[in-house]
Amino acid sequence: MKETQEQKRRRLLELAKASVANTYSTGEHSLVQAINTYNELDKVKNLIHEKLEEWYGIYFPELRSGSMASYAKFVMEFGKEKKSADKDGISVIFGAKEGERVFEQAQKSIGRDPSEGEYAMLRMLAKQEEDIEHVQKDLDAFIKESCNERIPNLAYLVDYRIAAELLAKAGSLSKLALMPASTIQLLGAEKALFKHIKFGKKPPKYGILFKMPEITNGKRESRGRIARLYATKISIAARADAFTRRFIAKELKEDINRRLKEIDSRKGRR
Amino acid sequence: MKETQEQKRRRLLELAKASVANTYSTGEHSLVQAINTYNELDKVKNLIHEKLEEWYGIYFPELRSGSMASYAKFVMEFGKEKKSADKDGISVIFGAKEGERVFEQAQKSIGRDPSEGEYAMLRMLAKQEEDIEHVQKDLDAFIKESCNERIPNLAYLVDYRIAAELLAKAGSLSKLALMPASTIQLLGAEKALFKHIKFGKKPPKYGILFKMPEITNGKRESRGRIARLYATKISIAARADAFTRRFIAKELKEDINRRLKEIDSRKGRR
Repeated sequence: MKETQEQKRRRLLELAKASVANTYSTGEHSLVQAINTYNELDKVKNLIHEKLEEWYGIYFPELRSGSMASYAKFVMEFGKEKKSADKDGISVIFGAKEGERVFEQAQKSIGRDPSEGEYAMLRMLAKQEEDIEHVQKDLDAFIKESCNERIPNLAYLVDYRIAAELLAKAGSLSKLALMPASTIQLLGAEKALFKHIKFGKKPPKYGILFKMPEITNGKRESRGRIARLYATKISIAARADAFTRRFIAKELKEDINRRLKEIDSRKGRR
Repeated sequence: MKETQEQKRRRLLELAKASVANTYSTGEHSLVQAINTYNELDKVKNLIHEKLEEWYGIYFPELRSGSMASYAKFVMEFGKEKKSADKDGISVIFGAKEGERVFEQAQKSIGRDPSEGEYAMLRMLAKQEEDIEHVQKDLDAFIKESCNERIPNLAYLVDYRIAAELLAKAGSLSKLALMPASTIQLLGAEKALFKHIKFGKKPPKYGILFKMPEITNGKRESRGRIARLYATKISIAARADAFTRRFIAKELKEDINRRLKEIDSRKGRR
């Protein structure tokens, strides 16, 4: 029996649906979502903290803190009556040296203390910031586990966070695996590359890979070479993760370390 | 005894500090901070929700919801196993009609269910969105109370949220009180005003005041006139709140209502 036009349409629709479902079923998409969400929560935390610091600045304008987390903690613990905060408690938050300074500032502050109602709002805001921080910690643990499971070679070769960012930028593991090393090297440097092509600025040497300590701490003139070296090995590792599923990252890493020494000594001879 | 240069310097420094402290002590600054924070949290909620919908979209791509809150609630309650969600439970979230549709979609969805670990992350994200919503509710209550206490005339004349936004835009109550009505009318329309001056676009008729139902629902040709009427009375109310502290908003409102009728009938005669 020949299938009718309607039957054919339905069959093809089912096939298309199955293919979409299949694409999304690998779990690597969750990893991409997780790292994107993590980065977005950085923005969220900054927005909330800005408001907190602006608002609590009315009551304690002298307080400056290098770390957002300790600022928020101070508001939660001592924001109601900053002058009655004990030195030890403050030092737990800021460390001994900075704690001393904050204590002095609290004693001499020109700001009044917030009312009951005002403080309730400030505390809530600080708490919210802390909650976001906790969510990020859980996400980070999820990302780590997920990387070790799904892209073990990449996660071994570079830090799992960098591996996840590469994956997110590429869009999917198979895309990453099929990219030439030169593209991988510049993932995340799209803007700089654009400026190079359009305005003739200096071409970028690395994108996401710049977050690697091996590159950041390398000699300036070797950085491009090191980035290229990593990109080549990342490309091989991605193929292993995507297709063969064999663990070869150990050898790749040894290879990298050997080459790093070569690069280092070659530079020395000049 | 004549004061030395150093003593004079100190005395003036103390005076300056006291004046700054005094400026910040009125509590109206907290109100400004509260409304600004409220608006910023709208942004924050949107950012989080975007990520949630993008991520959960992997598992239930068919789900579309008009309300962010009900989407988040669905994820929290039924996100783990959407097919086993009961129709009644879904209807509680979405209402009977939309609930029916979502139930059908869940049954036929092409998405797989999230793993234990993936679901934990999604739930956390949805919870975070709900928490922000709660913070906003508390802030709103704070804003309402604070408005009734500090700017009773303004809060009576227009909605307390609009009163607070006017205050925030002006920067402080005394600034608002000293503004001409025409400036108040255009508070919040700075961009449009700029376009008018610079590019010769049509001049704006209202800024924040456009959020008032009396204006939004007014006849198109009367809106500017109504906005001007309100701006004039707001200016008087702001002066009462800032300087005399007498409650005169009731008479102002009666005045407005009388004038609104006039405007309405005048238009009718044309």
